[in-house]
Amino acid sequence: MLFPRATIIGIGLIGGSFALATKRAGLVGEVIGVARSESTRSLALQRGAADRVTADVAEAVRGADLVYLATPISAILSLLPQIGPHLAPATLVTDAGSTKVEIVTAARALPSSVFFLGGHPMAGSEQAGIVAARADLFEGSTYLLTPTTDTPEEAVLRLAELAREIGARPVLVDPETHDRLVAVTSHLPHLLAWALCAAAAETNSLDRLSSFTAGAWRDTTRIADSPEEVWADIFLTNREHLMATALRFSERWGDLLRLVALGDREGLIAFLRDSREAHRRIGEA
Amino acid sequence: MLFPRATIIGIGLIGGSFALATKRAGLVGEVIGVARSESTRSLALQRGAADRVTADVAEAVRGADLVYLATPISAILSLLPQIGPHLAPATLVTDAGSTKVEIVTAARALPSSVFFLGGHPMAGSEQAGIVAARADLFEGSTYLLTPTTDTPEEAVLRLAELAREIGARPVLVDPETHDRLVAVTSHLPHLLAWALCAAAAETNSLDRLSSFTAGAWRDTTRIADSPEEVWADIFLTNREHLMATALRFSERWGDLLRLVALGDREGLIAFLRDSREAHRRIGEA
Repeated sequence: MLFPRATIIGIGLIGGSFALATKRAGLVGEVIGVARSESTRSLALQRGAADRVTADVAEAVRGADLVYLATPISAILSLLPQIGPHLAPATLVTDAGSTKVEIVTAARALPSSVFFLGGHPMAGSEQAGIVAARADLFEGSTYLLTPTTDTPEEAVLRLAELAREIGARPVLVDPETHDRLVAVTSHLPHLLAWALCAAAAETNSLDRLSSFTAGAWRDTTRIADSPEEVWADIFLTNREHLMATALRFSERWGDLLRLVALGDREGLIAFLRDSREAHRRIGEA
Repeated sequence: MLFPRATIIGIGLIGGSFALATKRAGLVGEVIGVARSESTRSLALQRGAADRVTADVAEAVRGADLVYLATPISAILSLLPQIGPHLAPATLVTDAGSTKVEIVTAARALPSSVFFLGGHPMAGSEQAGIVAARADLFEGSTYLLTPTTDTPEEAVLRLAELAREIGARPVLVDPETHDRLVAVTSHLPHLLAWALCAAAAETNSLDRLSSFTAGAWRDTTRIADSPEEVWADIFLTNREHLMATALRFSERWGDLLRLVALGDREGLIAFLRDSREAHRRIGEA
């Protein structure tokens, strides 16, 4: 057993799945689940994602060997200074936030006696909440870990092992590179899906649109169902990289529309072919 | 049996699947497959998607009860005037092109003794070719049929029955409305996927990007693998509607980027929520 007592703050899709996965793998002993909502707390107990639940963060982290922060990013940022005084020495603190620079910076406020290592499981879905939690959520996915020069080697080894034990593939990356690359692969597609649905909403005869949808619509807009408060935090804590990649997108979008408007068939085919090649070169994890 | 002899011109993903589906359902007798490539023709025979194959269009359509045009749109547009003189009276001609106004207009060149009805099966995938053909491709999907005021009722009834027999849900729509609405639900998402991959191609450390991809990237960019010549035809034969919806997208995209750039959390949440609501209202077929 890696962690006799684990405290999970924010026991929704990611936190709940992390609890189910680590319990199933025998990696944690007692799990304490923290949620503000009474219904989330009782559902976490019912689903076996927590052995004990509370709304009291300070009480929950006391004596924990592992603290897992799985709330929206703005809550992670305010929890970090709040939990510090209540942590026992050598507690391993990690999080599941989708951006890392701001979180890793805020974690510098933790006492030097505890270990912090930022994490980002590349798993999940447009669904949210403990009802959607699954013990196999992380299987086959990448688990990004973002050590800095200050991170003790032991924290990295233990979390990488934990990620492997729940079926994920740990990948180490510095927080800055993390934020720059997920802006491209995750944040930009989410922004596009929301702008696409906003544009579609202006269609005349909107009520007929469903008869005209197929795989392309379904797959591109699935993520527009994601929880907006979680994503507003993600976008705003990765503003610089997101704007940079969004503006690169806007340029290529302009190029592509010009080719369509001009009816330049050869130019259009060349654009689509180059883009398809890039897609293949990028590949999949 | 609805059609004793069916000729399928362009026996790739859609044409091949149509052959397999209609043969399995006992709707067609002899199927004649037309393809320019020798390897496609022999694979169509091997896979049982055709009883006879040829590269000679005129010979293939002679004596056919049903002619199914499943090539890229530019080839459909040049085939229509070409096959006319070789068709027997009362032959039903239809097509599987993803845009309809230009095709329906070109079909006016057919002899008045034959029946034409445009079609658009909302099935398929980013894959192409007879190797990807499946008898169940149309099951559960929408099959759009685009009659005009000139279309004989009998053509509509027979094709709607055929669509139902292969497991699809026939929906009637005029060609203009068809092109306007698929511009939103299908052509726009495809354009976005290609522009997204083109933007991603400019990322520094492109070779590392695959470790940072998850469901959002996979689902949004899947369609960027679609065949570019087919899609250049689609975009260019639906230029007016596509540009209109693309420019509506560009406006909403600009709004969204402004909210991110300004760090307007409340405005951003409101945008995402409204867009998500639109997504749910549109729903799925």
